[in-house]
Amino acid sequence: MSLNRIDLGVTCDMHVHVRDGAMCELVTPTIREGGVSVAYIMPNLQPPVTTLERVVAYKETLQKLSPKTTFLMSFYLSRELTPELIHKAASLGAVQGVKCYPAGVTTNSAAGVDPNDFTGFYPIFKAMEENNLVLNLHGEKPSVSNSKDGDDIHVLNAEAKFLPALAKLHTDFPNLKIILEHCTTAAAIQTIEEINKDITDPADIRVAATITAHHLHLIIDDWAGNPINFCKPVAKLPSDRRALVEAAVSGKPYFFFGSDSAPHPLENKARHIGVSAGVFSQRFAIAYVAEVFDQQNALDKLKDFVSTFGINFYGVKSADLVSQDKAVLVRREYTVPETVTDHKGITMAPFMAGHKLHWDVQWETSA
Amino acid sequence: MSLNRIDLGVTCDMHVHVRDGAMCELVTPTIREGGVSVAYIMPNLQPPVTTLERVVAYKETLQKLSPKTTFLMSFYLSRELTPELIHKAASLGAVQGVKCYPAGVTTNSAAGVDPNDFTGFYPIFKAMEENNLVLNLHGEKPSVSNSKDGDDIHVLNAEAKFLPALAKLHTDFPNLKIILEHCTTAAAIQTIEEINKDITDPADIRVAATITAHHLHLIIDDWAGNPINFCKPVAKLPSDRRALVEAAVSGKPYFFFGSDSAPHPLENKARHIGVSAGVFSQRFAIAYVAEVFDQQNALDKLKDFVSTFGINFYGVKSADLVSQDKAVLVRREYTVPETVTDHKGITMAPFMAGHKLHWDVQWETSA
Repeated sequence: MSLNRIDLGVTCDMHVHVRDGAMCELVTPTIREGGVSVAYIMPNLQPPVTTLERVVAYKETLQKLSPKTTFLMSFYLSRELTPELIHKAASLGAVQGVKCYPAGVTTNSAAGVDPNDFTGFYPIFKAMEENNLVLNLHGEKPSVSNSKDGDDIHVLNAEAKFLPALAKLHTDFPNLKIILEHCTTAAAIQTIEEINKDITDPADIRVAATITAHHLHLIIDDWAGNPINFCKPVAKLPSDRRALVEAAVSGKPYFFFGSDSAPHPLENKARHIGVSAGVFSQRFAIAYVAEVFDQQNALDKLKDFVSTFGINFYGVKSADLVSQDKAVLVRREYTVPETVTDHKGITMAPFMAGHKLHWDVQWETSA
Repeated sequence: MSLNRIDLGVTCDMHVHVRDGAMCELVTPTIREGGVSVAYIMPNLQPPVTTLERVVAYKETLQKLSPKTTFLMSFYLSRELTPELIHKAASLGAVQGVKCYPAGVTTNSAAGVDPNDFTGFYPIFKAMEENNLVLNLHGEKPSVSNSKDGDDIHVLNAEAKFLPALAKLHTDFPNLKIILEHCTTAAAIQTIEEINKDITDPADIRVAATITAHHLHLIIDDWAGNPINFCKPVAKLPSDRRALVEAAVSGKPYFFFGSDSAPHPLENKARHIGVSAGVFSQRFAIAYVAEVFDQQNALDKLKDFVSTFGINFYGVKSADLVSQDKAVLVRREYTVPETVTDHKGITMAPFMAGHKLHWDVQWETSA
């Protein structure tokens, strides 16, 4: 491996929000610009993506916007899904998973489910398990304060309070592939490690976690007073960040990259009330991660984290790829722009706006 | 006491920011409009107030803007102060205290001190102790992350990490009057109670704490995504809020009201990066507090919290008051405006903008 040029192979970002309409046109091409070949697309449009017709149409739209990106698609877990739909969508290869949002915890999650009782969805999970689809969990309990018994839930402990529900799902569906998305706490890392402690063959992994680029960089101080860094789950304490970084560079195959890049127009971030939750990291996704791996002297582990482990967990085959291009990390210093604007007038502030980065991604195209 | 009309006497807000220039003109009259008779004024102008000439001129400016408000004044603790200045200012009654800002923790605190070592200021504290002046502490340690030993300091534990320094100051200057300003944690409440546990005569109290209106209302979830509620120290967890509310309604004479109302133009709050820290609560200061006391069925304790205890700790005498008017809490439902704007074009969003309040203050003027 050269110090200035590192092969990353078929990179993947297993948690991507590209919205629809004009925002989708702006954001979808940034997946590849940010160094990502395979993107797992979240279904939290308005209304949520819950039908075969919509997910197929959505994928077609995205494919036109970015012909060399391989899109993995998902349904939004809701009462509108049926086991029959799961079987059909899986047999057609229309979706690779189903995303579960607890109601009310983040952007467009109002149609989500009650995380205190998943049993109503067990027929869906059974169908998913049978079809080897992935259950993507937004792992937070909704906040409850002013509780008299002291068992408060707030943005800091919302993820930790969710972890028992994750463990129970795994117990009830031991073969269901589950991802705890964008995990943010040392407690979550420990839970994932505990579940996998007896795994010797990576093919046996059923419960994994994605880690975002921004949670490798941020702590609570960074979003206090900086809505550009406000997202759900919120970035936590320095000790949590250390646990995330350690997991990311650990070489453990149940931790891999999902950016949770969540674009919002600047006017929805630069507000004194009701700031939209989400960090837009797509445009420099791999570079943000490389920055942390470089600081940890772990660039040799980067390919595992942003390619191999995600590809393996989802079972992505070479034949599934719309492009065989390989990503190559190259050393180059540049400054993240303060904003990006498209021809339709949408302006966004990218993560780490104004900060220097030291790595970029080039594409090696196959003949 | 009528259920709809409660005498509050000479109300006081012992932590007030009124800035200078146009903002000062807008904000200073809101002290009385918000139901406050006596205001302790913070010295964190740019440059900080550190001379006799400036504090006298500042008080004259404020008095013209609000003739019926009694202003208590303060110096900004810095290397520019001398024991001689403290003696002189105290003998003239020009200041009632000195505010200590740890460097870098909040608005205009760059000129502050290193909270890890106060000993350089001990001659100042000795002079203050001799003159019965109050030391007002912003009780936070500056954040330190990426520390290798795990002893991180961040916005959530910055106050708790400061408490040993408070205890040491009290040990070293047992007769110095000290206020832990705008305390936000159960840990701080416990420390103040521990220090005062053997006090039987309120006149012997040397260490007190102020509690703001907004920290009686807010937790971390409320400022996550709502910069209008972002302040330093940040609002903490539900359990911390419960401890603050319990302290406020406790009738313990070492807990009293200081709003820390900190006005910022709306454009400095509605930003995606670098939001100014501070909540503007002056205009409805007493009403915000009354709302909480009402919820706690503790309106009979409100006068102690917003008048008696602060007046007693500072030793404010009737002869010191520029107005003998008495504040009366009256039941009246109204909605906090979304913004307030003055004739010079400054716009601000008040705390709880758009929310209903149920109490207002009227003035009973003396002949």
